[in-house]
Amino acid sequence: MAREENPSDVIWGGRTDARRHRVVIVGGGFGGLYAARSLARSPTAVTLLDRRNFHLFQPLLYQVATGGLSPSNISSPLREVLRGKQRVRVLMGDVVDVDVAQRQVVLADGDTVAYDTLIVATGVSHDYFGNEAWRQNAPGLKTMEDALEMRRKVLYAFEAAERERDPTRRRAWLNFVVVGAGPTGVELAGALGELANDTLKHEFRAIDPADSQIILLEGGDRILPNFPADLSAKALKALERLGVTLRLQSYVTDVRPDAVTIETATREVIIPTRCVLWAAGVKASPLGQVLHRSAGAELDKIGRVSVNPDLTVPNHPEIIVIGDLANFSHQTGSPLPGVAPVAMQQGRYAAKRIRNQMRGRETAPFRYADKGTLATIGRSAAVADFGKLRFSGWLAWVLWLFIHLLFLIQFRNRVLVVFQWAWSYLTRNRSTRLIVEHRGSSDSNHP
Amino acid sequence: MAREENPSDVIWGGRTDARRHRVVIVGGGFGGLYAARSLARSPTAVTLLDRRNFHLFQPLLYQVATGGLSPSNISSPLREVLRGKQRVRVLMGDVVDVDVAQRQVVLADGDTVAYDTLIVATGVSHDYFGNEAWRQNAPGLKTMEDALEMRRKVLYAFEAAERERDPTRRRAWLNFVVVGAGPTGVELAGALGELANDTLKHEFRAIDPADSQIILLEGGDRILPNFPADLSAKALKALERLGVTLRLQSYVTDVRPDAVTIETATREVIIPTRCVLWAAGVKASPLGQVLHRSAGAELDKIGRVSVNPDLTVPNHPEIIVIGDLANFSHQTGSPLPGVAPVAMQQGRYAAKRIRNQMRGRETAPFRYADKGTLATIGRSAAVADFGKLRFSGWLAWVLWLFIHLLFLIQFRNRVLVVFQWAWSYLTRNRSTRLIVEHRGSSDSNHP
Repeated sequence: MAREENPSDVIWGGRTDARRHRVVIVGGGFGGLYAARSLARSPTAVTLLDRRNFHLFQPLLYQVATGGLSPSNISSPLREVLRGKQRVRVLMGDVVDVDVAQRQVVLADGDTVAYDTLIVATGVSHDYFGNEAWRQNAPGLKTMEDALEMRRKVLYAFEAAERERDPTRRRAWLNFVVVGAGPTGVELAGALGELANDTLKHEFRAIDPADSQIILLEGGDRILPNFPADLSAKALKALERLGVTLRLQSYVTDVRPDAVTIETATREVIIPTRCVLWAAGVKASPLGQVLHRSAGAELDKIGRVSVNPDLTVPNHPEIIVIGDLANFSHQTGSPLPGVAPVAMQQGRYAAKRIRNQMRGRETAPFRYADKGTLATIGRSAAVADFGKLRFSGWLAWVLWLFIHLLFLIQFRNRVLVVFQWAWSYLTRNRSTRLIVEHRGSSDSNHP
Repeated sequence: MAREENPSDVIWGGRTDARRHRVVIVGGGFGGLYAARSLARSPTAVTLLDRRNFHLFQPLLYQVATGGLSPSNISSPLREVLRGKQRVRVLMGDVVDVDVAQRQVVLADGDTVAYDTLIVATGVSHDYFGNEAWRQNAPGLKTMEDALEMRRKVLYAFEAAERERDPTRRRAWLNFVVVGAGPTGVELAGALGELANDTLKHEFRAIDPADSQIILLEGGDRILPNFPADLSAKALKALERLGVTLRLQSYVTDVRPDAVTIETATREVIIPTRCVLWAAGVKASPLGQVLHRSAGAELDKIGRVSVNPDLTVPNHPEIIVIGDLANFSHQTGSPLPGVAPVAMQQGRYAAKRIRNQMRGRETAPFRYADKGTLATIGRSAAVADFGKLRFSGWLAWVLWLFIHLLFLIQFRNRVLVVFQWAWSYLTRNRSTRLIVEHRGSSDSNHP
């Protein structure tokens, strides 16, 4: 293959073999990381690009948001994870464009990285259904920054309530509204219930944190709509034991700093609150739009790329889209769910497809092997759906713990998480309840 | 004592005993926290005010800045630490003024908290010798936000170097300048040496992190000027083994985003660097100025309050200043060092003085019992100065570990820190190498 020298191309430092098949992976989540690992021993030169320097274990992000775990417990530096893989390099960079003709991705600062095969795995972020202004008052939960902002907001609400003299305003500080009753919303609401009823007990003098109201809003007619109805009902009972109030068929029509407005079938309700947590709606990463513009990719209504049965972009066998950003509807007629196992399996499939292609072999279409779904609702409560087998309660919860530990990257993190879970279980306490400000350097009143 | 109702006064929630002696403590560092704990069983009503919701173990802050520990490992929520003390309440608030006539402190939002005795323990922040513009390019290390900013800057420098094609610019990314060779500067430089030489080994493809230059600048003629000269020499040897270059009698005259200018006895030198860490110079918290204005307190040239032999402000026996903010020169003729043991002992003394006063007893002047000083210079290296007894090397390092664990608040944090130290020792790795941005909520390119 003839290759031109490109002066903007990010160098490998002379250690690369110019004849190797160059794979560029954009995004170091489950899809990208599993693709990179699976390619590590192939005769490829892999570049993993991410805006962050770490892989984030998103399924436990809600525990950071509610003070149970530290950011580093669920994050692994991508370089450290891939340290031993000499044929994989990690670059921190923000991909803003794909030059399909030149086969290179373009970074925000103008640098380029050339590929023979491109894997795009940049996922989704949360969406406010066109009401971007709500973002400021209702943080979502997709990035570490999101989780820290949620934690700050939740913990600060109790601090402000302790100091508030006016009973009406104090009530608003103690109302917590979670929007969306999918797994993230349910897990968040459950963790808030534990925080208010157990963790913060005896810590305040003017308020009782157990007077908090945790309100879970759902547009549909039950929580966990992707689970069977009987498991939804069991999860709801567990949530109610934690003091969570559910409002079904309720649509958010406005979010202000001190209240959220909802519309039900019959009326409009205003809930005074200083803490709205957003767990509803996703939209695809802007890389979907980039592929639409540059490679003619077709997007679904939330911006995901409709892929071929082999996960490539139609007419571009050299571009593969995996994970939450891909709309793969060939198996069930509807898109696969946006969960980690889909991304992992697609990451491994993409690697296999590249290896087969280099050997001139065909690859059978991708098929997702659904191993089941789990959701947890606080201490000792969870629901598990394995198709024929479904159960709830303590056993489901232990299974949830075990599976989450198993897929957590790095042994060190597993030990730290187990210790903190055991500690929280025994003491009903949470270890990482820090309100850290978002600013560059210190100011200087109370250093 | 006659008490007026004050409508702006932050309420206790009806649980307080109005006849109790009201103690307000500003600042939840070592001084404030030890004072609060010592007063917990006295017939007082204690309010501990802090802008943060956590106590910070500052001696280990440099390990957060260099990716060795998580923020939560060295922080303890003040409410949790004081949970069982029913006569102590914690309020999160920013004290901006002291109304000496009305005996109340004023918070930023206009709320007030009344006191019979006021303890001010708001410490010091770092200082740029009048060059505030340097702050932006040379973060100091006093708050958790400072430490996270340092960590971001250090880790990002390696990431940028890996992507940089131009050798001169790459060199600048790999030059790390630490300003000030007191304990903080020495510990930072040592930790950077370990990071570059051990932790990041094998993780990069275009650069070798061991090519980094760590330059330690000191205005005086030796490092650790508060230690005996022979220990300074030993500490320097340990630093040199970690690849740290020392420049003595060098004064910083300018800090720009891409270089630092220093002046030595003979010439001016410009060091190209993208990462300057500030460990020189302190100035007192603005509460010193507040006490100067409101209570006529005398300040020294860095803004500390000159206190009486019993730590009170002259002419104000109801105002006590402790910790780094106090200039206590009665014992040795010069101010006591700004270290945790001084603050702890003064916190306990302040509590004792209040108890004695309530019983109508006198309290003997404060005396600092100096138990010795330690500083560490990375793996297995430290210096210890116990007056007659001084030593260095492995034994000093083990002692350093032991003492720091002993004074770390909360058993849980001790376990987590021990585990991570053991892990780092065995693997030469660091667990918390995350580059987290300073922003409120997520943006959405690679979620």
